[in-house]
Amino acid sequence: MPVRGNAVYAQSGGVTSVINASAYGVIKSAMAAEFIDDIYAGLYGINGVLEDKLIDVYQESFEAIEGLRYTPSAAFGSCRKKLDINKNRAEFERIIQVFKAHNIRYFFYNGGNDSMDTAHKISLISKEMGYEVISIGVPKTVDNDLPITDNTPGYGSVAKYNAIAIREGSFDVESMHRDSTKVFVLESMGRHAGWIVGATGLAATSEKDGPQIILFPERTLHQDNFLAKVEETVAKIGYCVIAVSEGVRRPDGTFIADSGLRDSFGHAQLGGAGMAIADIVKTNLNLKVHTAILDYCQRSGRHIASKTDVEQAIACGQKAVELAAEDKNGFMPVIFRESNNPYEWSIGEAPISAIANKEKEVPDEYIREDGYHITDAFREYATPLIAGEDYPPYKNGLPNYVRLKKVLVPPKA
Amino acid sequence: MPVRGNAVYAQSGGVTSVINASAYGVIKSAMAAEFIDDIYAGLYGINGVLEDKLIDVYQESFEAIEGLRYTPSAAFGSCRKKLDINKNRAEFERIIQVFKAHNIRYFFYNGGNDSMDTAHKISLISKEMGYEVISIGVPKTVDNDLPITDNTPGYGSVAKYNAIAIREGSFDVESMHRDSTKVFVLESMGRHAGWIVGATGLAATSEKDGPQIILFPERTLHQDNFLAKVEETVAKIGYCVIAVSEGVRRPDGTFIADSGLRDSFGHAQLGGAGMAIADIVKTNLNLKVHTAILDYCQRSGRHIASKTDVEQAIACGQKAVELAAEDKNGFMPVIFRESNNPYEWSIGEAPISAIANKEKEVPDEYIREDGYHITDAFREYATPLIAGEDYPPYKNGLPNYVRLKKVLVPPKA
Repeated sequence: MPVRGNAVYAQSGGVTSVINASAYGVIKSAMAAEFIDDIYAGLYGINGVLEDKLIDVYQESFEAIEGLRYTPSAAFGSCRKKLDINKNRAEFERIIQVFKAHNIRYFFYNGGNDSMDTAHKISLISKEMGYEVISIGVPKTVDNDLPITDNTPGYGSVAKYNAIAIREGSFDVESMHRDSTKVFVLESMGRHAGWIVGATGLAATSEKDGPQIILFPERTLHQDNFLAKVEETVAKIGYCVIAVSEGVRRPDGTFIADSGLRDSFGHAQLGGAGMAIADIVKTNLNLKVHTAILDYCQRSGRHIASKTDVEQAIACGQKAVELAAEDKNGFMPVIFRESNNPYEWSIGEAPISAIANKEKEVPDEYIREDGYHITDAFREYATPLIAGEDYPPYKNGLPNYVRLKKVLVPPKA
Repeated sequence: MPVRGNAVYAQSGGVTSVINASAYGVIKSAMAAEFIDDIYAGLYGINGVLEDKLIDVYQESFEAIEGLRYTPSAAFGSCRKKLDINKNRAEFERIIQVFKAHNIRYFFYNGGNDSMDTAHKISLISKEMGYEVISIGVPKTVDNDLPITDNTPGYGSVAKYNAIAIREGSFDVESMHRDSTKVFVLESMGRHAGWIVGATGLAATSEKDGPQIILFPERTLHQDNFLAKVEETVAKIGYCVIAVSEGVRRPDGTFIADSGLRDSFGHAQLGGAGMAIADIVKTNLNLKVHTAILDYCQRSGRHIASKTDVEQAIACGQKAVELAAEDKNGFMPVIFRESNNPYEWSIGEAPISAIANKEKEVPDEYIREDGYHITDAFREYATPLIAGEDYPPYKNGLPNYVRLKKVLVPPKA
């Protein structure tokens, strides 16, 4: 019988189209769970815990909670805060102090690599401090770079968004190329792993369908070789559509987009890979180039989310509460692929320690031998993840997303 | 009784999500018209006429023609070719020669300002040359800058795409701004008219909804005033979402994005306004900024087309054939707004000469007095144009757009 107490849910890292669908899964299941009394959410993720700013979820309307299912971004606010137990143990002790003051026995942390590390450390330190909190990770990242899980909620939707964007951009340049733009560049997110940029390859079902060239962060950009490929494509079909990851590097290891800035995790702040590639093509081949940078629109593009992704995000949230009920401190729901044809999946579990701080790159067998496209193995992997549409409701021509009231409970610590 | 003969349909200028829906309207009506025998389409617009490369529309499958209704871009190929009767009258004579050789009595030209000029000149010169061709314009431009018509097919969909993109990007930055990006910039198309960038304003229904700032091409960028506005917004709500038109200019008249290149119409080739604005904000306010450049994705984003726009595009195509039947040489269908509440529209007609080479900017009463947002009058105008969704069919998670066979008829001239 699980310990009775309150629960905190918090969102972390870059948002996705479906992180709120996971929140919906956690909250609806937590509301139904007898061992959970009040449900709180961290205002701006772990910041809300550190500052004792906890949103009282039961103050939100029924409609708002239902609306989480189809609202992108982080409805409770997200954070980019990396906690380091070696450098600042006091922050972890503060978290346990706040948990204790509010009788919080369950912590659901919805995030990627860095956040899973935090969830793991909380599970350890709560034991050491004699106030045990069941800390459960809920997977989330558009980057799809968490190990063990077949894929990560958020990925299917960003993959679908990118594949659609390149299909539509490709139809555009195909119809215009005779007198106008010859090369269209689309920049995709994905810092170290090429899962997102690779998904654009799903749109290429014939020679005329872009992308004709995909630039993976797992492959170094060899400029001459790349330019020869662009020239060859333009000579053959009249135009060339290029999908480039923000994380592509030069042979010397530097990002083609590196601006020199770093975020608070120490990651390079990228965003100019598309412009860099466009410049390389313009300067060397003297072709008219256009560039699209989808930036945040791709990871918040809930209007065209993958139905599979939405369902898996909700299921991961629900499973997190089940794991809590089973006293699975330090675990995370993971998605297992049961079969490809038809695509079937189930939700399992894995210890967060096996997931935190690890990155899953696109494996060699998913990237074509010349490095410029995906293989059938990638197609088989990613196609079911973008399957199905799950349209939000509309009002006055626009998606009717919800915004929460975010009423805080009185601070106690 | 109209003259019996063949018809040519051709697409021109930058594509839209619904130009093929107009093609669908023209073709289905032309197929049903007793006075039209064969239906051809110019391969890459007027180029196909000049080169006697005419697509035989009856060779396309029934499914392909039906698919035009939901396929973005120009299915027959578009062109960026400005014909100038004063500089090159021979090109116009060549067009009439090809028309005569193929017994073409009806010409439907689907395009924007420049294309309407071509259609108009063809209507005039065919009379002079004694081989009369009924030349009908079919309106199309994402820029929405044609006069007389209430709006232009293509606009409602690009407006909806932009408004959704900024709503989603705005939700993203709202949830992330505490530890991360403070300013999100979205660049919209629209060379001289701010109709597209203005449409992003439809997403702003409360103080927290982006865009908080809209930069119109109808207003000069006064940098200090703009930066003060950004600072004020960030101080008040913690972040700021900016929508900027590619056509915004400095006080000296130069485009903030001008790359120095020109396209074949002599228009400046733009695309860097978003980056320019981001640089201005970063450099002066030292805030973390992200930039999205939707580029071609916005004008080909058929997956989220406006239902109103699709219906009007088809209706304009159908009306073009009616005008041909009525011997209305040199006319174009136009959209009339019958009422706002409920929104009702009808299709009328106007002489192309009143439309060609004129640009309709966003009027002063549609732009807020400080220049940084839209007024209620803009809302009332644009809201019905983005109303309704018209989703394309999907296959394997992606829109199942059609590609035509484009079988050419044997050349005769």
